Amino acid sequence: MATLLHYPLCAFSRSIRLALVECGFEAELAEERPWEWRRAFIELNPAGTVPVLVTDEHGPISGTYPISEYLADTIDERDPRGFQLFPGEPPARAEARRLVDWFHRKFYDEVTSYLVDEKVFRRFGPQSASPNMEAMRAGHDNLRYHLTYIGHLADTRSWLAGEALSFADLAAAAHLSVLDYLGEVPWEEFEAAKNWYALLKSRPSFRPLLQDRVAGFTASETYADLDF
Amino acid sequence: MATLLHYPLCAFSRSIRLALVECGFEAELAEERPWEWRRAFIELNPAGTVPVLVTDEHGPISGTYPISEYLADTIDERDPRGFQLFPGEPPARAEARRLVDWFHRKFYDEVTSYLVDEKVFRRFGPQSASPNMEAMRAGHDNLRYHLTYIGHLADTRSWLAGEALSFADLAAAAHLSVLDYLGEVPWEEFEAAKNWYALLKSRPSFRPLLQDRVAGFTASETYADLDF
Repeated sequence: MATLLHYPLCAFSRSIRLALVECGFEAELAEERPWEWRRAFIELNPAGTVPVLVTDEHGPISGTYPISEYLADTIDERDPRGFQLFPGEPPARAEARRLVDWFHRKFYDEVTSYLVDEKVFRRFGPQSASPNMEAMRAGHDNLRYHLTYIGHLADTRSWLAGEALSFADLAAAAHLSVLDYLGEVPWEEFEAAKNWYALLKSRPSFRPLLQDRVAGFTASETYADLDF
Repeated sequence: MATLLHYPLCAFSRSIRLALVECGFEAELAEERPWEWRRAFIELNPAGTVPVLVTDEHGPISGTYPISEYLADTIDERDPRGFQLFPGEPPARAEARRLVDWFHRKFYDEVTSYLVDEKVFRRFGPQSASPNMEAMRAGHDNLRYHLTYIGHLADTRSWLAGEALSFADLAAAAHLSVLDYLGEVPWEEFEAAKNWYALLKSRPSFRPLLQDRVAGFTASETYADLDF
Protein backbone atom coordinates (compact mmCIF):
# COMPACT_ATOMS: atom_id res chain seq x y z
CA MET A 1 0.00 0.00 0.00
CA ALA A 2 1.09 3.58 -0.60
CA THR A 3 2.39 5.69 2.30
CA LEU A 4 1.88 9.41 2.79
CA LEU A 5 4.62 11.14 4.73
CA HIS A 6 2.90 14.08 6.38
CA TYR A 7 2.79 16.33 9.42
CA PRO A 8 -0.58 16.70 11.20
CA LEU A 9 -0.52 20.50 11.49
CA CYS A 10 0.80 21.04 7.93
CA ALA A 11 -1.95 22.47 5.71
CA PHE A 12 -0.32 21.10 2.54
CA SER A 13 -0.27 17.58 4.00
CA ARG A 14 -3.89 17.94 5.04
CA SER A 15 -5.02 18.98 1.56
CA ILE A 16 -3.48 15.80 0.18
CA ARG A 17 -4.98 13.63 2.93
CA LEU A 18 -8.41 15.00 1.95
CA ALA A 19 -7.67 14.47 -1.74
CA LEU A 20 -6.57 10.87 -1.23
CA VAL A 21 -9.81 9.94 0.53
CA GLU A 22 -12.00 11.86 -1.93
CA CYS A 23 -10.22 10.08 -4.79
CA GLY A 24 -10.49 6.67 -3.14
CA PHE A 25 -6.70 6.28 -3.15
CA GLU A 26 -5.67 4.19 -0.15
CA ALA A 27 -2.54 5.23 1.70
CA GLU A 28 -1.11 4.69 5.16
CA LEU A 29 -0.03 7.78 7.05
CA ALA A 30 3.46 8.19 8.48
CA GLU A 31 4.29 11.28 10.50
CA GLU A 32 7.37 13.17 9.36
CA ARG A 33 8.88 16.11 11.23
CA PRO A 34 10.49 18.05 8.41
CA TRP A 35 12.44 20.33 10.77
CA GLU A 36 14.47 17.29 11.92
CA TRP A 37 15.98 16.94 8.41
CA ARG A 38 15.98 13.14 8.62
CA ARG A 39 18.56 11.91 6.17
CA ALA A 40 16.44 9.22 4.51
CA PHE A 41 13.68 11.79 4.08
CA ILE A 42 15.96 14.32 2.38
CA GLU A 43 17.11 11.58 0.02
CA LEU A 44 13.45 11.00 -0.84
CA ASN A 45 12.64 14.70 -1.25
CA PRO A 46 15.64 17.05 -1.48
CA ALA A 47 13.36 20.03 -0.78
CA GLY A 48 12.81 18.54 2.68
CA THR A 49 9.09 19.34 2.70
CA VAL A 50 5.96 17.31 3.35
CA PRO A 51 3.82 15.80 1.94
CA VAL A 52 5.52 12.97 0.02
CA LEU A 53 3.41 10.13 -1.37
CA VAL A 54 5.38 6.89 -1.71
CA THR A 55 3.47 4.83 -4.26
CA ASP A 56 3.93 1.14 -5.00
CA GLU A 57 3.62 1.63 -8.72
CA HIS A 58 5.49 4.86 -9.37
CA GLY A 59 7.84 5.42 -6.42
CA PRO A 60 7.88 8.63 -4.40
CA ILE A 61 5.92 11.69 -5.56
CA SER A 62 7.17 14.77 -3.71
CA GLY A 63 5.17 17.89 -3.03
CA THR A 64 1.56 18.99 -2.98
CA TYR A 65 1.48 20.15 -6.59
CA PRO A 66 2.99 16.97 -8.11
CA ILE A 67 0.84 14.71 -5.88
CA SER A 68 -2.42 16.50 -6.68
CA GLU A 69 -1.72 16.43 -10.42
CA TYR A 70 -0.59 12.80 -10.14
CA LEU A 71 -3.93 11.91 -8.57
CA ALA A 72 -5.75 13.85 -11.29
CA ASP A 73 -3.58 12.14 -13.93
CA THR A 74 -4.19 8.60 -12.74
CA ILE A 75 -7.64 8.81 -11.23
CA ASP A 76 -9.77 7.62 -14.14
CA GLU A 77 -8.46 4.10 -13.77
CA ARG A 78 -9.05 3.95 -10.04
CA ASP A 79 -12.29 5.48 -8.95
CA PRO A 80 -15.62 4.03 -10.01
CA ARG A 81 -17.31 7.22 -8.79
CA GLY A 82 -15.13 9.21 -11.17
CA PHE A 83 -14.19 11.85 -8.63
CA GLN A 84 -12.08 14.59 -10.21
CA LEU A 85 -9.84 16.99 -8.32
CA PHE A 86 -10.06 19.39 -11.28
CA PRO A 87 -13.51 18.72 -12.72
CA GLY A 88 -15.06 20.04 -15.90
CA GLU A 89 -13.78 21.67 -19.04
CA PRO A 90 -10.45 23.55 -19.38
CA PRO A 91 -11.80 26.92 -18.05
CA ALA A 92 -13.29 25.24 -14.96
CA ARG A 93 -10.08 23.32 -14.37
CA ALA A 94 -8.07 26.53 -14.73
CA GLU A 95 -10.33 28.27 -12.20
CA ALA A 96 -9.86 25.44 -9.69
CA ARG A 97 -6.08 25.67 -10.17
CA ARG A 98 -6.14 29.47 -9.80
CA LEU A 99 -7.77 29.02 -6.41
CA VAL A 100 -5.44 26.20 -5.37
CA ASP A 101 -2.60 28.63 -6.04
CA TRP A 102 -4.51 31.29 -4.14
CA PHE A 103 -4.72 29.16 -0.99
CA HIS A 104 -1.50 27.19 -1.20
CA ARG A 105 0.56 30.23 -2.10
CA LYS A 106 -1.16 33.55 -1.29
CA PHE A 107 -3.17 32.42 1.75
CA TYR A 108 -0.13 30.47 2.98
CA ASP A 109 2.17 33.50 2.60
CA GLU A 110 -0.33 35.95 4.09
CA VAL A 111 -1.99 33.92 6.83
CA THR A 112 -0.77 30.36 7.52
CA SER A 113 2.92 31.21 7.48
CA TYR A 114 2.29 33.97 10.04
CA LEU A 115 -0.13 32.20 12.36
CA VAL A 116 0.85 28.53 12.15
CA ASP A 117 4.57 28.91 11.56
CA GLU A 118 4.78 31.38 14.44
CA LYS A 119 2.78 29.23 16.84
CA VAL A 120 3.88 25.73 15.82
CA PHE A 121 7.02 25.46 13.70
CA ARG A 122 8.89 28.26 15.40
CA ARG A 123 8.92 26.10 18.51
CA PHE A 124 11.08 23.53 16.71
CA GLY A 125 13.29 26.01 14.91
CA PRO A 126 16.82 27.11 15.77
CA GLN A 127 15.59 30.20 17.67
CA SER A 128 12.79 28.43 19.52
CA ALA A 129 11.47 31.84 20.61
CA SER A 130 7.94 32.92 21.42
CA PRO A 131 5.68 34.05 18.56
CA ASN A 132 6.34 37.38 16.87
CA MET A 133 3.27 39.45 17.80
CA GLU A 134 3.54 41.68 14.76
CA ALA A 135 3.45 38.65 12.46
CA MET A 136 0.48 37.25 14.38
CA ARG A 137 -1.40 40.55 14.00
CA ALA A 138 -0.71 40.69 10.25
CA GLY A 139 -1.91 37.08 9.94
CA HIS A 140 -5.16 37.88 11.76
CA ASP A 141 -5.84 40.93 9.59
CA ASN A 142 -5.15 39.05 6.39
CA LEU A 143 -7.32 36.12 7.51
CA ARG A 144 -10.37 38.42 7.69
CA TYR A 145 -9.82 39.53 4.11
CA HIS A 146 -9.50 35.93 2.97
CA LEU A 147 -12.62 34.81 4.87
CA THR A 148 -14.52 37.59 3.07
CA TYR A 149 -13.23 36.32 -0.28
CA ILE A 150 -14.19 32.73 0.58
CA GLY A 151 -17.67 33.94 1.57
CA HIS A 152 -17.98 35.84 -1.69
CA LEU A 153 -17.07 32.76 -3.72
CA ALA A 154 -19.31 30.47 -1.66
CA ASP A 155 -22.22 32.90 -2.05
CA THR A 156 -22.00 33.03 -5.82
CA ARG A 157 -21.13 29.39 -6.59
CA SER A 158 -21.97 25.92 -5.27
CA TRP A 159 -18.33 25.32 -4.36
CA LEU A 160 -15.36 27.69 -4.38
CA ALA A 161 -14.30 27.11 -7.99
CA GLY A 162 -17.73 26.44 -9.52
CA GLU A 163 -20.49 23.87 -9.64
CA ALA A 164 -18.46 20.94 -8.35
CA LEU A 165 -16.24 20.26 -5.37
CA SER A 166 -12.60 20.56 -6.44
CA PHE A 167 -9.10 20.54 -4.99
CA ALA A 168 -9.59 24.30 -4.44
CA ASP A 169 -12.11 23.53 -1.67
CA LEU A 170 -9.80 20.95 -0.14
CA ALA A 171 -6.80 23.30 -0.21
CA ALA A 172 -8.77 26.15 1.38
CA ALA A 173 -10.32 23.87 4.01
CA ALA A 174 -6.92 22.36 4.83
CA HIS A 175 -5.45 25.76 5.75
CA LEU A 176 -8.55 26.77 7.70
CA SER A 177 -8.63 23.44 9.54
CA VAL A 178 -5.13 24.02 10.95
CA LEU A 179 -6.07 27.56 11.99
CA ASP A 180 -9.29 26.20 13.46
CA TYR A 181 -7.34 23.61 15.47
CA LEU A 182 -5.39 26.50 16.97
CA GLY A 183 -8.60 28.46 17.64
CA GLU A 184 -7.68 31.27 15.24
CA VAL A 185 -10.79 31.50 13.02
CA PRO A 186 -13.51 34.07 13.94
CA TRP A 187 -16.25 31.98 12.31
CA GLU A 188 -19.15 33.86 13.90
CA GLU A 189 -18.32 36.97 11.88
CA PHE A 190 -18.13 35.20 8.52
CA GLU A 191 -21.31 33.26 8.03
CA ALA A 192 -20.98 32.40 4.34
CA ALA A 193 -17.46 31.05 4.84
CA LYS A 194 -18.63 29.14 7.91
CA ASN A 195 -21.51 27.50 6.01
CA TRP A 196 -19.15 26.41 3.24
CA TYR A 197 -16.66 25.04 5.80
CA ALA A 198 -19.45 23.19 7.64
CA LEU A 199 -20.27 21.31 4.45
CA LEU A 200 -16.67 20.20 4.06
CA LYS A 201 -16.25 19.41 7.73
CA SER A 202 -19.11 16.93 7.60
CA ARG A 203 -17.64 14.94 4.69
CA PRO A 204 -16.17 11.50 5.51
CA SER A 205 -12.80 12.63 4.11
CA PHE A 206 -12.59 15.20 6.91
CA ARG A 207 -13.11 12.77 9.79
CA PRO A 208 -9.48 11.65 10.17
CA LEU A 209 -8.34 15.31 10.33
CA LEU A 210 -10.81 16.03 13.11
CA GLN A 211 -9.27 13.20 15.14
CA ASP A 212 -5.74 14.67 14.93
CA ARG A 213 -4.30 15.67 18.27
CA VAL A 214 -0.78 17.02 18.50
CA ALA A 215 1.13 16.94 21.77
CA GLY A 216 1.80 20.44 23.03
CA PHE A 217 -1.02 21.99 21.03
CA THR A 218 -4.53 21.79 22.40
CA ALA A 219 -7.31 21.65 19.83
CA SER A 220 -9.88 24.44 20.12
CA GLU A 221 -13.12 23.44 21.80
CA THR A 222 -15.19 23.34 18.62
CA TYR A 223 -12.47 21.89 16.39
CA ALA A 224 -14.09 18.46 16.04
CA ASP A 225 -17.63 19.76 16.50
CA LEU A 226 -19.72 19.52 13.32
CA ASP A 227 -22.16 21.99 14.84
CA PHE A 228 -19.58 24.70 15.61
CA MET B 1 -5.55 36.02 -30.97
CA ALA B 2 -4.73 35.35 -27.33
CA THR B 3 -2.91 37.99 -25.27
CA LEU B 4 -0.36 37.36 -22.55
CA LEU B 5 -0.20 40.04 -19.87
CA HIS B 6 3.37 39.89 -18.60
CA TYR B 7 6.26 41.88 -17.20
CA PRO B 8 9.63 41.53 -18.97
CA LEU B 9 11.73 41.01 -15.81
CA CYS B 10 9.22 38.64 -14.19
CA ALA B 11 10.54 35.07 -14.20
CA PHE B 12 7.04 33.57 -14.02
CA SER B 13 5.97 35.54 -17.11
CA ARG B 14 9.11 34.43 -18.91
CA SER B 15 8.50 30.76 -18.21
CA ILE B 16 5.06 31.08 -19.81
CA ARG B 17 6.44 33.03 -22.79
CA LEU B 18 8.86 30.15 -23.39
CA ALA B 19 6.09 27.58 -22.94
CA LEU B 20 3.77 29.33 -25.40
CA VAL B 21 6.38 29.30 -28.16
CA GLU B 22 7.48 25.72 -27.44
CA CYS B 23 3.82 24.64 -27.55
CA GLY B 24 3.14 26.58 -30.75
CA PHE B 25 0.42 28.62 -29.02
CA GLU B 26 0.28 32.08 -30.58
CA ALA B 27 -0.23 35.03 -28.27
CA GLU B 28 0.43 38.75 -28.38
CA LEU B 29 2.36 40.24 -25.50
CA ALA B 30 1.05 43.16 -23.45
CA GLU B 31 3.22 44.61 -20.71
CA GLU B 32 1.55 44.87 -17.32
CA ARG B 33 3.13 46.59 -14.30
CA PRO B 34 1.52 44.70 -11.45
CA TRP B 35 2.71 47.19 -8.81
CA GLU B 36 0.42 49.83 -10.37
CA TRP B 37 -2.66 47.78 -9.35
CA ARG B 38 -4.52 48.75 -12.54
CA ARG B 39 -8.20 48.32 -11.82
CA ALA B 40 -9.12 46.41 -14.99
CA PHE B 41 -6.19 44.07 -14.32
CA ILE B 42 -7.31 43.32 -10.74
CA GLU B 43 -10.78 42.53 -12.08
CA LEU B 44 -9.12 40.06 -14.43
CA ASN B 45 -6.89 38.52 -11.74
CA PRO B 46 -7.77 39.40 -8.13
CA ALA B 47 -4.33 38.17 -7.01
CA GLY B 48 -2.85 41.05 -9.01
CA THR B 49 0.00 38.98 -10.39
CA VAL B 50 1.37 38.30 -13.86
CA PRO B 51 1.22 36.32 -16.08
CA VAL B 52 -2.40 36.21 -17.24
CA LEU B 53 -3.26 34.56 -20.56
CA VAL B 54 -6.43 35.97 -22.12
CA THR B 55 -7.62 33.30 -24.53
CA ASP B 56 -10.26 33.68 -27.24
CA GLU B 57 -11.80 30.34 -26.51
CA HIS B 58 -11.73 30.11 -22.72
CA GLY B 59 -11.38 33.65 -21.37
CA PRO B 60 -8.62 34.69 -18.95
CA ILE B 61 -6.37 32.07 -17.34
CA SER B 62 -4.59 33.62 -14.34
CA GLY B 63 -1.28 32.48 -12.95
CA THR B 64 1.70 30.42 -14.00
CA TYR B 65 0.39 27.15 -12.60
CA PRO B 66 -3.08 27.33 -14.22
CA ILE B 67 -1.63 28.53 -17.54
CA SER B 68 1.02 25.80 -17.74
CA GLU B 69 -1.51 23.08 -16.92
CA TYR B 70 -3.99 24.66 -19.35
CA LEU B 71 -1.41 24.41 -22.11
CA ALA B 72 -0.69 20.80 -21.12
CA ASP B 73 -4.44 20.09 -21.00
CA THR B 74 -5.24 21.50 -24.42
CA ILE B 75 -2.03 20.90 -26.32
CA ASP B 76 -2.85 17.66 -28.13
CA GLU B 77 -5.33 19.43 -30.35
CA ARG B 78 -2.97 22.21 -31.26
CA ASP B 79 0.54 21.09 -31.91
CA PRO B 80 1.39 18.77 -34.77
CA ARG B 81 4.82 18.23 -33.21
CA GLY B 82 3.11 16.99 -30.07
CA PHE B 83 5.29 19.02 -27.71
CA GLN B 84 4.44 18.24 -24.10
CA LEU B 85 5.27 20.48 -21.14
CA PHE B 86 5.04 17.42 -18.88
CA PRO B 87 6.17 14.58 -21.12
CA GLY B 88 6.16 10.87 -20.45
CA GLU B 89 4.44 8.59 -17.98
CA PRO B 90 3.05 9.65 -14.55
CA PRO B 91 6.41 9.34 -12.68
CA ALA B 92 8.20 11.47 -15.29
CA ARG B 93 5.42 14.04 -15.22
CA ALA B 94 5.57 14.12 -11.41
CA GLU B 95 9.34 14.67 -11.55
CA ALA B 96 8.92 17.59 -13.97
CA ARG B 97 6.30 19.11 -11.67
CA ARG B 98 8.51 18.59 -8.60
CA LEU B 99 11.19 20.65 -10.32
CA VAL B 100 8.75 23.31 -11.53
CA ASP B 101 7.78 23.72 -7.88
CA TRP B 102 11.47 23.76 -6.96
CA PHE B 103 12.20 26.68 -9.26
CA HIS B 104 8.95 28.61 -9.12
CA ARG B 105 8.68 28.31 -5.35
CA LYS B 106 11.98 27.38 -3.66
CA PHE B 107 14.37 29.09 -6.09
CA TYR B 108 12.03 32.09 -6.21
CA ASP B 109 11.88 32.34 -2.40
CA GLU B 110 15.61 31.76 -1.94
CA VAL B 111 17.13 33.59 -4.90
CA THR B 112 14.86 35.53 -7.28
CA SER B 113 12.86 37.26 -4.54
CA TYR B 114 16.10 38.45 -2.94
CA LEU B 115 18.02 39.50 -6.03
CA VAL B 116 15.35 40.60 -8.51
CA ASP B 117 12.78 41.98 -6.10
CA GLU B 118 15.51 43.95 -4.32
CA LYS B 119 17.00 45.34 -7.50
CA VAL B 120 13.90 45.80 -9.65
CA PHE B 121 10.54 45.74 -7.89
CA ARG B 122 11.69 47.55 -4.77
CA ARG B 123 12.24 50.58 -6.95
CA PHE B 124 8.52 50.77 -7.69
CA GLY B 125 7.33 49.92 -4.18
CA PRO B 126 6.09 52.23 -1.45
CA GLN B 127 9.55 52.50 0.16
CA SER B 128 11.47 52.92 -3.07
CA ALA B 129 14.68 52.44 -1.11
CA SER B 130 18.01 51.06 -2.25
CA PRO B 131 18.54 47.28 -2.17
CA ASN B 132 18.92 45.55 1.17
CA MET B 133 22.50 44.28 1.09
CA GLU B 134 21.86 41.42 3.49
CA ALA B 135 19.08 40.11 1.25
CA MET B 136 21.34 40.44 -1.79
CA ARG B 137 24.09 38.47 -0.04
CA ALA B 138 21.66 35.69 0.95
CA GLY B 139 20.42 35.55 -2.64
CA HIS B 140 23.96 35.21 -3.99
CA ASP B 141 24.81 32.43 -1.53
CA ASN B 142 21.63 30.51 -2.31
CA LEU B 143 22.16 30.94 -6.05
CA ARG B 144 25.45 29.00 -5.84
CA TYR B 145 23.72 26.09 -4.13
CA HIS B 146 21.01 26.07 -6.80
CA LEU B 147 23.53 26.26 -9.66
CA THR B 148 25.23 23.20 -8.15
CA TYR B 149 21.92 21.36 -8.06
CA ILE B 150 21.14 22.32 -11.67
CA GLY B 151 24.59 21.09 -12.69
CA HIS B 152 24.02 17.82 -10.85
CA LEU B 153 20.70 17.27 -12.64
CA ALA B 154 22.12 18.28 -16.02
CA ASP B 155 25.09 15.93 -15.53
CA THR B 156 22.94 12.89 -14.80
CA ARG B 157 20.08 13.46 -17.24
CA SER B 158 19.52 14.82 -20.76
CA TRP B 159 17.34 17.61 -19.38
CA LEU B 160 16.61 18.66 -15.81
CA ALA B 161 13.65 16.34 -15.23
CA GLY B 162 14.68 13.43 -17.44
CA GLU B 163 15.12 12.42 -21.06
CA ALA B 164 12.96 15.15 -22.57
CA LEU B 165 12.77 18.92 -22.32
CA SER B 166 9.95 19.86 -19.95
CA PHE B 167 8.43 22.89 -18.25
CA ALA B 168 11.00 22.31 -15.47
CA ASP B 169 13.76 23.45 -17.86
CA LEU B 170 11.73 26.45 -18.95
CA ALA B 171 10.96 27.48 -15.36
CA ALA B 172 14.60 27.17 -14.29
CA ALA B 173 15.85 29.01 -17.36
CA ALA B 174 13.27 31.77 -16.88
CA HIS B 175 14.59 32.59 -13.39
CA LEU B 176 18.21 32.39 -14.51
CA SER B 177 17.53 34.58 -17.53
CA VAL B 178 16.30 37.43 -15.35
CA LEU B 179 19.32 37.05 -13.06
CA ASP B 180 21.54 36.89 -16.14
CA TYR B 181 20.00 40.11 -17.49
CA LEU B 182 21.03 41.77 -14.23
CA GLY B 183 24.53 40.24 -14.44
CA GLU B 184 24.08 38.14 -11.30
CA VAL B 185 25.04 34.65 -12.51
CA PRO B 186 28.65 33.45 -11.98
CA TRP B 187 28.50 31.10 -15.00
CA GLU B 188 32.23 30.53 -15.21
CA GLU B 189 32.22 28.64 -11.90
CA PHE B 190 29.34 26.33 -12.81
CA GLU B 191 30.16 24.68 -16.10
CA ALA B 192 27.48 21.97 -16.13
CA ALA B 193 24.73 24.50 -15.41
CA LYS B 194 26.20 26.81 -18.03
CA ASN B 195 26.20 24.10 -20.70
CA TRP B 196 22.58 23.26 -19.95
CA TYR B 197 21.62 26.96 -20.09
CA ALA B 198 23.49 27.42 -23.38
CA LEU B 199 21.31 24.73 -24.95
CA LEU B 200 18.15 26.52 -23.86
CA LYS B 201 19.46 29.93 -24.77
CA SER B 202 19.97 28.85 -28.38
CA ARG B 203 16.39 27.63 -28.84
CA PRO B 204 14.09 29.78 -30.99
CA SER B 205 11.68 30.15 -28.04
CA PHE B 206 14.42 32.05 -26.16
CA ARG B 207 15.06 34.67 -28.83
CA PRO B 208 12.29 37.11 -27.82
CA LEU B 209 13.54 37.07 -24.21
CA LEU B 210 17.05 37.94 -25.33
CA GLN B 211 15.65 41.00 -27.11
CA ASP B 212 14.01 42.37 -23.95
CA ARG B 213 15.38 45.68 -22.78
CA VAL B 214 13.89 47.42 -19.76
CA ALA B 215 14.38 51.14 -19.23
CA GLY B 216 16.45 51.79 -16.13
CA PHE B 217 18.02 48.33 -16.11
CA THR B 218 20.97 47.69 -18.37
CA ALA B 219 21.32 44.14 -19.68
CA SER B 220 24.61 42.46 -18.79
CA GLU B 221 27.16 42.40 -21.60
CA THR B 222 26.74 38.71 -22.40
CA TYR B 223 22.98 38.57 -21.81
CA ALA B 224 22.06 38.16 -25.50
CA ASP B 225 25.31 36.42 -26.41
CA LEU B 226 24.85 32.75 -27.31
CA ASP B 227 28.57 32.24 -26.80
CA PHE B 228 28.69 33.65 -23.26
